[in-house]
Amino acid sequence: MKRLKVAVLGCGSVGSQVVRLLTEQADDLAARVGAPVELVGVAVRRLDAPREVEVAPGLLTTDAHGLVSGGEVDLVVELIGGIEPARSLILTALEHGASVVSANKALLAEDGSTLFEAAEKAGRDLYYEAAVAGAIPILRPLRESLAGDTVTRVLGIVNGTTNFVLDKMDTTGAGFTDALEEAQELGYAEADPTADVEGFDAAAKAAILASLAFHSRVTVADVYREGISEVTAADVASAREMDAVVKLLAICELKDGAVAARVHPAMIPRSHPLASVREAYNAVFVESEAAGQLMFYGPGAGGSPTASAVLGDLVTVARNRLAETRGTGESSYAARAVLPMGETLTRYHVSIDVADRAGVLAAVATAFSEHGVSIQTVRQEGRDDDAQLVVVSHRATDRQLADTVEHLRGMEIVRDITSVMRVEGMSE
Amino acid sequence: MKRLKVAVLGCGSVGSQVVRLLTEQADDLAARVGAPVELVGVAVRRLDAPREVEVAPGLLTTDAHGLVSGGEVDLVVELIGGIEPARSLILTALEHGASVVSANKALLAEDGSTLFEAAEKAGRDLYYEAAVAGAIPILRPLRESLAGDTVTRVLGIVNGTTNFVLDKMDTTGAGFTDALEEAQELGYAEADPTADVEGFDAAAKAAILASLAFHSRVTVADVYREGISEVTAADVASAREMDAVVKLLAICELKDGAVAARVHPAMIPRSHPLASVREAYNAVFVESEAAGQLMFYGPGAGGSPTASAVLGDLVTVARNRLAETRGTGESSYAARAVLPMGETLTRYHVSIDVADRAGVLAAVATAFSEHGVSIQTVRQEGRDDDAQLVVVSHRATDRQLADTVEHLRGMEIVRDITSVMRVEGMSE
Repeated sequence: MKRLKVAVLGCGSVGSQVVRLLTEQADDLAARVGAPVELVGVAVRRLDAPREVEVAPGLLTTDAHGLVSGGEVDLVVELIGGIEPARSLILTALEHGASVVSANKALLAEDGSTLFEAAEKAGRDLYYEAAVAGAIPILRPLRESLAGDTVTRVLGIVNGTTNFVLDKMDTTGAGFTDALEEAQELGYAEADPTADVEGFDAAAKAAILASLAFHSRVTVADVYREGISEVTAADVASAREMDAVVKLLAICELKDGAVAARVHPAMIPRSHPLASVREAYNAVFVESEAAGQLMFYGPGAGGSPTASAVLGDLVTVARNRLAETRGTGESSYAARAVLPMGETLTRYHVSIDVADRAGVLAAVATAFSEHGVSIQTVRQEGRDDDAQLVVVSHRATDRQLADTVEHLRGMEIVRDITSVMRVEGMSE
Repeated sequence: MKRLKVAVLGCGSVGSQVVRLLTEQADDLAARVGAPVELVGVAVRRLDAPREVEVAPGLLTTDAHGLVSGGEVDLVVELIGGIEPARSLILTALEHGASVVSANKALLAEDGSTLFEAAEKAGRDLYYEAAVAGAIPILRPLRESLAGDTVTRVLGIVNGTTNFVLDKMDTTGAGFTDALEEAQELGYAEADPTADVEGFDAAAKAAILASLAFHSRVTVADVYREGISEVTAADVASAREMDAVVKLLAICELKDGAVAARVHPAMIPRSHPLASVREAYNAVFVESEAAGQLMFYGPGAGGSPTASAVLGDLVTVARNRLAETRGTGESSYAARAVLPMGETLTRYHVSIDVADRAGVLAAVATAFSEHGVSIQTVRQEGRDDDAQLVVVSHRATDRQLADTVEHLRGMEIVRDITSVMRVEGMSE
């Protein structure tokens, strides 16, 4: 009976859980695959580094290149992350006839096409469910379950760190800095939290989601990005007053046949299914023409959940190897244009401190209408010697909305703009 | 270039949407499949029946058997429902070399093994994502994404009618009969609502979910079933008092290597992700060893959403045909025993009207402990001349709990037991 040989590249928190499952679940995996799956090597940077799992010393190697180019490996699991050497190793593995499972969102979002073309040329699989939203099966449903439908929109909470921080700000009233510190103490945020907090991680995932949802190639350079470091306690309080909550969203949409992909904080109504995604959980909300609204929810990170997604891919890829076939692969036939952020449709929530005198509301309303933006609601709150206007617009292009805010800033009656945030997930 | 020929059996609300999508999305489908997909016949009972989609007259036939046995069809979509003639038609289609997509939960739950064996023998696919939870991709994630993990529990809201009725009872305080009438008026419940209300529909889905989750064959006869027709406004109010909500749950669990599958109303905490599933939506909550907690949410029924799931399967099955391969297929290698309901672990919520005198609580507590059931919480509420005890137990076998309730009913100090309901989704 054929045995399938697996090499694992990287043995950090995910890699060690993959190695553990490959060992502990060997019998179940063999039953599911239809042949034994044998771990033949684990590439690491340092042989003597401490790790969460015991690896037989004969399996450990620092020569990742040698491991994937020996021609003896059927399946390569790439868990190194980053661009290089991960890209070279994946390309080498494919050239030498191995199928690949990867969790490398940065690489796939930056240079997926090089990898997909290499997989196509080699006639091998490249699967990467673990690259987006950890254990949540979202790429496979997009690629396969919804393949007969037309996806129109994807809204995702795809970064656990920022969701934890925003959830803390919402439930405790804390400011960004305090909430981030708590996240760091609890291990939900890195010492250098930039990749999460500034939306880089979510932007890579948005590029992957948009590519799959719309059958087109979208790279991270196509994704508009704003992080959460400028979200204030006042923004969160203002959201609360309109029965909304602030989330960092990855939004992928079709507009007139073009793709728009963006990551930014947004207010969403508390009645929206995404609003109930708490702590470091992730969820992806999908709108399609026939299926309607779907949501996929679960842990977005962590060694063990991510390893579950890797193993799911590994079973499929292994079965394909035995059947001498390939899975669905990438589908980029639609080759859509990418819409600039300025042309994306959204709506704004703007809190404005204004002089408390007659005609103020009319002047503000005129500023909106001069930019072609219509107002959905205005709430006026008197204070001692000034007043607060809270405006929620109807949908308009981001450029019209940004121009309106710029205009407001220059008005004599406007003392300060205390909060500007996009609003998503409301029915028009 | 090879064209794939598709026959659709049944042209009701789902069938007509499938026919519409096959026609309208023909170009996209061809791109996703890799070859044109051509509708060659639609089998109906009456040629002149009114339908939601225009079907070219030459395609309509009343001879379903002739359509699937002509040997010219690559893919058969079975949307007739029920046991016969659906079973014979699927078996004939497989024998004649067609791959099959079905949405027939009743047939799969009653006699899936006959179908799976026929598909295996024919070397063809049998896919049925649409049979459980409409458009929500749940079977594919269970079968493929979680194939490297060990699922331990599935909790599903898999019947939209009963969820609508229970949601109405929760939000308006209505009784079962009034809520059901409203559901019927709005088209969420049939004129004869038995299949939904008494849990038969959910039980068929539970059998399918348990089979896939635990790699074993579970039929509808193995599923314990209670409907919602005896859920009272008092039960719902009692749930509300403990910050819980009543849902009809399909529960599939592993216990000591055996499978337990059951459908019954249960109280779940409002903080549980399933509690926020409103109206006629469905959701399936999955617990697994490595991935942790996942939830899949969306519309559980309706022509268009169900057609989306059918088309997703059709694309996969069509691609497999072109590659001359099969998909994952059924995996029943684990061949697990089925646990009787009495041995299933659960917990009870019991509301008891008792005589208001000293020692009542002690007597009731003694009754629980005599059956080996420990109590988690007791709430005592005084009334005019009697008192109400609300007891939530710790986990015990269903038999121990049922015996306890039987014992309580026979006690002299117990005037009435006003509500008995299982509680799920609480941490122990």
